[in-house]
Amino acid sequence: MGRELNIGILGLGVVGTGVARILLEEGNLLTERTGVNFSLKTAVDLDWDRERGLNLKGVNTTTDYNELVNDPKIDIVVETIGGIEPAFSFVMQALAARKHVVTANKALIAIKGRELFRQAQKYGVELLFEASVGGGIPIIKSLKEGLVANKILSIYGIVNGTSNYILTRMHQDELDFEEALGEAQAKGFAEADPTLDVGGGDAAHKLTVLASLASGGFVNFQAIPVEGIEELTTLDINFAKRFGYVIKLLAICRFNGKKIDLRVHPTLVPGDHLLAAVNNELNAIFVTGNFVGDTMFYGPGAGQLPTASAIVSDLVDLSRNFLRKADDASFTRIINPEKSIELFSLGEISNRYYLRLFTLDQPGILSKISGVLGKYQVSISSMVQLETHGEKNYVPIVLLTHEAPERAMFKALSEISKFDFVRPDILRLRLFK
Amino acid sequence: MGRELNIGILGLGVVGTGVARILLEEGNLLTERTGVNFSLKTAVDLDWDRERGLNLKGVNTTTDYNELVNDPKIDIVVETIGGIEPAFSFVMQALAARKHVVTANKALIAIKGRELFRQAQKYGVELLFEASVGGGIPIIKSLKEGLVANKILSIYGIVNGTSNYILTRMHQDELDFEEALGEAQAKGFAEADPTLDVGGGDAAHKLTVLASLASGGFVNFQAIPVEGIEELTTLDINFAKRFGYVIKLLAICRFNGKKIDLRVHPTLVPGDHLLAAVNNELNAIFVTGNFVGDTMFYGPGAGQLPTASAIVSDLVDLSRNFLRKADDASFTRIINPEKSIELFSLGEISNRYYLRLFTLDQPGILSKISGVLGKYQVSISSMVQLETHGEKNYVPIVLLTHEAPERAMFKALSEISKFDFVRPDILRLRLFK
Repeated sequence: MGRELNIGILGLGVVGTGVARILLEEGNLLTERTGVNFSLKTAVDLDWDRERGLNLKGVNTTTDYNELVNDPKIDIVVETIGGIEPAFSFVMQALAARKHVVTANKALIAIKGRELFRQAQKYGVELLFEASVGGGIPIIKSLKEGLVANKILSIYGIVNGTSNYILTRMHQDELDFEEALGEAQAKGFAEADPTLDVGGGDAAHKLTVLASLASGGFVNFQAIPVEGIEELTTLDINFAKRFGYVIKLLAICRFNGKKIDLRVHPTLVPGDHLLAAVNNELNAIFVTGNFVGDTMFYGPGAGQLPTASAIVSDLVDLSRNFLRKADDASFTRIINPEKSIELFSLGEISNRYYLRLFTLDQPGILSKISGVLGKYQVSISSMVQLETHGEKNYVPIVLLTHEAPERAMFKALSEISKFDFVRPDILRLRLFK
Repeated sequence: MGRELNIGILGLGVVGTGVARILLEEGNLLTERTGVNFSLKTAVDLDWDRERGLNLKGVNTTTDYNELVNDPKIDIVVETIGGIEPAFSFVMQALAARKHVVTANKALIAIKGRELFRQAQKYGVELLFEASVGGGIPIIKSLKEGLVANKILSIYGIVNGTSNYILTRMHQDELDFEEALGEAQAKGFAEADPTLDVGGGDAAHKLTVLASLASGGFVNFQAIPVEGIEELTTLDINFAKRFGYVIKLLAICRFNGKKIDLRVHPTLVPGDHLLAAVNNELNAIFVTGNFVGDTMFYGPGAGQLPTASAIVSDLVDLSRNFLRKADDASFTRIINPEKSIELFSLGEISNRYYLRLFTLDQPGILSKISGVLGKYQVSISSMVQLETHGEKNYVPIVLLTHEAPERAMFKALSEISKFDFVRPDILRLRLFK
C-alpha cells in the first residue's frame, strides 16, 4: 500500500471538485505510479447543498476551515478558492501549521507570492502552483525543472483563453468584439464580468508567475504595462491579416542583460509563426532558452479537469518527499519492467488512406479499381485523375478513402497490383485521425 | 556551497561535450537553482586529440572506462556514446556499481530498456533518459510527472528532425526527396547513412520510449510496423496539399481499452492541425490525456546544446535525492523571495508598430502624419489607405513602422492626435519580434 498522504481541499468549486474526483476515482493509478496512497480526508466549503456528482463518503465535509488547518494528520492543503482574500489568510495559516500547499491561484502568487514564499521557507514546507498558469500544460515544471540548465531569454505566452477565443472568432469568422465576447460567455469561457480576461489583467497575473520563475525573484505585478483587446475592431483584424499577421494577446517577458522587459498587449504575430496557429480557447507558452533554443508548450489553459490534472501533478511531486529509499522512487516505478503490454497487430486497426497509382490512360480503368475497393468495403471519399503528368503513357490517379480495416486495404491493393494497366509503384499512405 | 555531486561522462562526442560545457560554464547558475554543486570529475573517450573548445583542467580525462566505473566518488555516469554496444555493457556495469545513469540513447532504452530497468531496480539506483526523445523538449518529464494524473489516450509525435526537414522542403519548395535529403546532409541534420532517419527506425526507437512511459511497461520495439518517407514524391506532396493536408512522418501511439496501437509511417495531417505547422528540423509531440485533453510539446529534437540541456535536467532531478531537508528543496529555491528583479520601463524599449487611424478624406493628410512620425525618427515600412469603409467622411489609414522607441512613438501619437482631421480613436498595436 505504501505511505499514505492525507489531503484537504479548501474550496469545492469547479476546480476543487475536479481534484476530488481524480483523487477518488484514480487513486489506484496514482498509487501504481508513485507508491503513495493519496487520501482525500477533508473538504471545506460554505455550500454543501450543491450537487457535485461526487461520492464523498469517508471524507470530512465541513464549513469550518479550522477543522482542516488544525488537523495534525493533514499533510497537504489544496487551495481552490481563488482571489486574494480569504485565500491568502488561509494559505498563510496552512503554511504556519507546516502543511504543504498546492494552489491554482495565479492572482495570489502574482500579488502575494513574496510573502507566501517567505512563509513557506520559514516553516520548511512547499508551496506549489503548477495549475496557476496554462491550466493543464506543465509549464511551471518545464521552466523550473525541464529547462533548469538554461537562462531563459524570452517567453511569449497566449495565457488567457477567453481573449484567444474572441480573437480567433474575430479572425476566422469576422465577428466583431462584442459578438465574439457574447459567444465566449455563452460557451462558458468568459466570466459575467470579463474585464480581467479581455483587459489583460489575468494574463498579467500569469506573466508575473512565469517571469518570477524565469528570473529567480518575484517581479512586481503592478509595474507591468497592460493593454487589453477591447479596442480591436474587425477592421484591424483584417488589416493585420492583409499584412500577413494574426493578432494575439501576448504576455511578453524578455531578458536583456540584467533587466527584464514585461508587457501584456495585443501583438501582430507573423502568420507562419507557431503561436499564430494557437486558436480558440487554447493556450501556448513559447519559451526560448540559451541552450535549448525555441520551445513551445500548448494545451488547455483552463477547465475543471485540465486544471485538476495540474494540481494532482503537484501532489505527486510532494509525495516524493515521502519516498526515501531509491527502490521506492517514482522515477523508476513509472515503467514497470515486469508489466507486459499487448500491441494491436496492424490487421486489427482501421484507417483512412491516400492511394496514389499510375495507370495506362485507357477507358474503364477507374471502374475496375473502384470495383476492387468496393469488393473489400473500402469506399472512396475523394479522387483526382489528371490528364497527364508527363509520364509516358501513365497517368496518376489519387484517391482518399473513408475508414477501412488495414486487412481489407491490404487485400484490395494486392488485387489491384495484379492489373497489367497499373504500374507497380503504388503508394498507400494513412490519414491522421 | 551545498552538497557536491560527482559526475563522469562516458563519451565526449558532440552531446557529451555539450554536457561538459554546461557543467563547466553554468555551474554557478545550477548551484543557485538547486543548492547542489555539480562537479565534472571524469571524462572517458578514446580520442583526446580532437579540439573540443573546453577547458578540462581539473577533470580526469582518460581512455579507460574502469577509472570511471570503479571510482567510488562518482555518483552519476552520463552515457553519451550512443548505439547498443559498448554502451549497454558499460551502463549495466555502472548500475551494478550503484551509480545513477543518465543517457540520451534512445536505441539503448528502446531495445534494452527492460534489462536496464531491472538492473537499476536491483541495485537501487536511477536510470534517466530525458534526452532520448525530443532533444531539449521536456517530454519525458511531462509524461511521467506533469501529466501523471492522466491515462494517456494517444501520442502523435514528429520525432525525427531529418525527416521533418526533408518533408518541409518538399512541401514548401517542391524539392524532390533526393534534393531535400542532400540539403539536410549538407546542413548537418542527416547522417551520411540516413537509413535510420528516413526509414523510420529512429522514430520507432523514440516511439518505444514514449509508449513505454504511457503504458507503464516496456513495449516490444520489434513489433512496431514502420514505414519511412523514401517513396514519397513531389507529386504526392502536392496532391496531399490539394486535398488540404500536409504529409508528416508520425510516431503514433493510441490506446484502445487494454491494447495499444503503435505505428510509424508518413501520415496526411489536416493543414489546420497544429502538427502541420511544425516545420524544418523541429520536433513536436502531441499528447492527449483523459483529464488534460490535448497538449503539444514543441522544440529542437536534436543538437548539441538542446540535448545537453535535457541531460542536465536529469542531473538536477537526481540531485534532489541528496536534498533531505525541506528548506533545502529546489522547488522553493527556484524563486528567491529576497532577490529583486529590475524591470525595464516601457519608455526604454523599442518595437515595431501597427497604427490605425481614421482621418477626414482631405488632400495632404498623409504627408502631415508621416511628417510627424519622421520628426521622431519613426519610419514607415508599409501603408494602406482605403478609399472608403462606410464611415461617414472618415477613411481608415493603417501603417506598419520599422522599430522605434516607445517614447518616440508616444510623442508622435500625442502630436498626431491633436490634428483636427484625425478622429480620437487611434489604435497603436505592437508587432511580434
